[in-house]
Amino acid sequence: MSKTVNIVELLSATLGDIVSTQPDDLAAARWDRSGLSASGTPLCVVHATSVDDVSATLRLANAHRVAVVPRGAGTGVVGGSFAGTGEIVLSLAGMNQILEINEVERYAVVQPGVINDHLDQQLRKQGLWFAPDPASRDISTVGGNIATNAGGLMCTKYGVTREAVLSLLVVLASGEVIRVGRTTAKGVTGLDLTALIVGSEGTLGVVVEATVRVHRKVPGSVATVSGYFPSIRQAAQACSDISAASLQPMIMELLDDRALTAVHNYLTLPPAPPGSSHVLVQTDGVSAHDDALAILAVMESCGGNASLAASDEEAAELVRIRRSLHPAMSSLGTTLIEDVCVPRSKLVEMFAAITAIEHKYDIVIPVVAHAGDGNLHPNFIFDTPEPTEVIWQAAGELFHAALDLGGTLTGEHGVGVLKQRWLGDELGDTQLKLQEEIKRVFDPHGILNPGKVFAAHP
Amino acid sequence: MSKTVNIVELLSATLGDIVSTQPDDLAAARWDRSGLSASGTPLCVVHATSVDDVSATLRLANAHRVAVVPRGAGTGVVGGSFAGTGEIVLSLAGMNQILEINEVERYAVVQPGVINDHLDQQLRKQGLWFAPDPASRDISTVGGNIATNAGGLMCTKYGVTREAVLSLLVVLASGEVIRVGRTTAKGVTGLDLTALIVGSEGTLGVVVEATVRVHRKVPGSVATVSGYFPSIRQAAQACSDISAASLQPMIMELLDDRALTAVHNYLTLPPAPPGSSHVLVQTDGVSAHDDALAILAVMESCGGNASLAASDEEAAELVRIRRSLHPAMSSLGTTLIEDVCVPRSKLVEMFAAITAIEHKYDIVIPVVAHAGDGNLHPNFIFDTPEPTEVIWQAAGELFHAALDLGGTLTGEHGVGVLKQRWLGDELGDTQLKLQEEIKRVFDPHGILNPGKVFAAHP
Repeated sequence: MSKTVNIVELLSATLGDIVSTQPDDLAAARWDRSGLSASGTPLCVVHATSVDDVSATLRLANAHRVAVVPRGAGTGVVGGSFAGTGEIVLSLAGMNQILEINEVERYAVVQPGVINDHLDQQLRKQGLWFAPDPASRDISTVGGNIATNAGGLMCTKYGVTREAVLSLLVVLASGEVIRVGRTTAKGVTGLDLTALIVGSEGTLGVVVEATVRVHRKVPGSVATVSGYFPSIRQAAQACSDISAASLQPMIMELLDDRALTAVHNYLTLPPAPPGSSHVLVQTDGVSAHDDALAILAVMESCGGNASLAASDEEAAELVRIRRSLHPAMSSLGTTLIEDVCVPRSKLVEMFAAITAIEHKYDIVIPVVAHAGDGNLHPNFIFDTPEPTEVIWQAAGELFHAALDLGGTLTGEHGVGVLKQRWLGDELGDTQLKLQEEIKRVFDPHGILNPGKVFAAHP
Repeated sequence: MSKTVNIVELLSATLGDIVSTQPDDLAAARWDRSGLSASGTPLCVVHATSVDDVSATLRLANAHRVAVVPRGAGTGVVGGSFAGTGEIVLSLAGMNQILEINEVERYAVVQPGVINDHLDQQLRKQGLWFAPDPASRDISTVGGNIATNAGGLMCTKYGVTREAVLSLLVVLASGEVIRVGRTTAKGVTGLDLTALIVGSEGTLGVVVEATVRVHRKVPGSVATVSGYFPSIRQAAQACSDISAASLQPMIMELLDDRALTAVHNYLTLPPAPPGSSHVLVQTDGVSAHDDALAILAVMESCGGNASLAASDEEAAELVRIRRSLHPAMSSLGTTLIEDVCVPRSKLVEMFAAITAIEHKYDIVIPVVAHAGDGNLHPNFIFDTPEPTEVIWQAAGELFHAALDLGGTLTGEHGVGVLKQRWLGDELGDTQLKLQEEIKRVFDPHGILNPGKVFAAHP
């Protein structure tokens, strides 16, 4: 009997019906939202419902040296959670309970499969809210946020996922369970494994419970400023100037003219002002209105045609346009969503670099940016099912342009398989080797999400 | 020729005059401010002035398997930076330059020996400031903050050192130099080694440069509330209630009656109201005054005699009283400053546990607390030069009381040698072993601050 048959039988014998070999289950796990897919078909999907399920799966997989791919909602965009030949899919989607909301200490204890928006909605009933809000918040999980240290629109003011994670319950490759971090406001007992595991994309352990910091409702109101700019350079300059001033938007989103037009077409809205790039800013707190007026003035000084939203409905419509970017891009062709982040003062230079790459490779790269963070999502659009080598070359050039500006390959999406070949360019050989050795401490047999972030063990 | 003679000669031959064997230098490095000291006398002190000095020291020490103790101002309170027999002291105190202040991106690049208050003063000239403000800020270094992930008074609102560190230049045990982190607002390229190194107390590498996030001056004013309470229970309850309400102090400091009386005596001030515990709150921002009034009302509802400071001078005097706590304690006898942190709602329970320990062991433990974080500094006072076993027993009981309340051994001081024996009680055996293996990845020969945080390699 082959090893392959053995492990599925062993898992089924131990875990029963939660081990699926249904073709639909297996096929779905070959994909995420990167546009890429895994080679071949995974062995099975374990639909975990408890910490014990996860522990048992890893214990068996580790003993038999079989790869395990932890997976939530599969909404990642770097190929970090898809699975192929010879791999076990460990689905955490069914572990979707909110276990506790502690209003006094301002934290929530959740299972990893909880949908971000669901957590936020539940919190808001108690006057609380959850800051990490990736564009996928309606369909993505808290576990996915943790795996990629996700940001979103509001992290410019309220921080990324790492800042929101207080403590994690983690199943190690061995099946052993550890609790890292704590629920106190601070603490320095030993090394900060919580921060190490946040953003590790399932390569160090499987998060089965998270204690996340939540916020009280912010007193005051939300004000919305919308600015149209005749050039992306002016729009980018306005965003840099807003960051450089003593102003802190709650969100600051930039869409270039192609992105804006695509969304208007996708939503069948009246055409956007031709050739215009758009900057959407929201401010919150007791000084929201004053801050919005100051931001409006900066936009106008940069050549923008800016206005305050007259109503909550108008503001909501502007946010809906921004949040419809991803499906709008998909309607243009196959999309490779990139995720570089540069210093906030370098937006103009980064947009110039993107334009140069478009001309050099004769491709179209509409861009949306979380401009308050300097985080750009250039969308490579093409008509082949997967990126061609030319697209990868262009993407590589884009990554290096970001690094040259003091930036990073990935602001919030992660490395997955998609950016692995450039990982050493940012980290340097010495640090990459060190990180691989840390990975080996957690996972000596290389069973946890092999080939993601780090090259698979030989 | 012995190994001992060799390494000092080798260092001197390579580094010249910065290698000191002056008795005064060696004697000073045997101490920190924990009240403990190292056994024996170190081999030499290397007064590093550059990254190359640090790299050369570690390369030689690693090749010859000689222990290196990185040291800044020596103001730590857990025996994390003192050195004894057979050890090289690597002093970073002379690397004290501010290399860059970037107003637009809001960061500063500093060498590790920069004094915290000096950095803050330089930043304030440009309308910026640095949040981590341990009580020792006038004499402690940024490198020391990073080593212990220091908090301070304002971290309740503005975060601990980890939140302030964007990027580090680190010399590894091998002498190799890596840069971890980045200056962008976010980024997830690989594992978060920056957060791993912050708080690692010199056990993973030597920080030779740090890029730290700085804040813009907060618009608005600062308001100060002072409340005297007839019992510590009422004072603690007021602090918990303030945290539980939608109020966020800039600082919230609690002194019990013994601590308050000691400071008044030390500063030769008129006596504090007899038997009173004191809570000092400052608020900042545009709603500072309103927040202060709301906090005053909470204090009164808990039985406090509370008032707003009438002038900046009165406010400054109240802050000075708080910041004089450490020398005041030292005037009472030998002091072991403890550092437990509990959930903010558990302050009353933690004070009750401390009172029980005082009665059980017939000892005196005045307490000051960063009450906004749930971080208590119980001060064990005794008349022997170092803590007796009874004091350690009482301290151990205190640590376990904090852990039982969901707290931690150390909020901001670190583990050093002082709390090592309790480390596994908080982390658990599996996690402790994992952390020790991570330490080994960074430092395979165990030369970096051996015996601090983790037990020395066998």
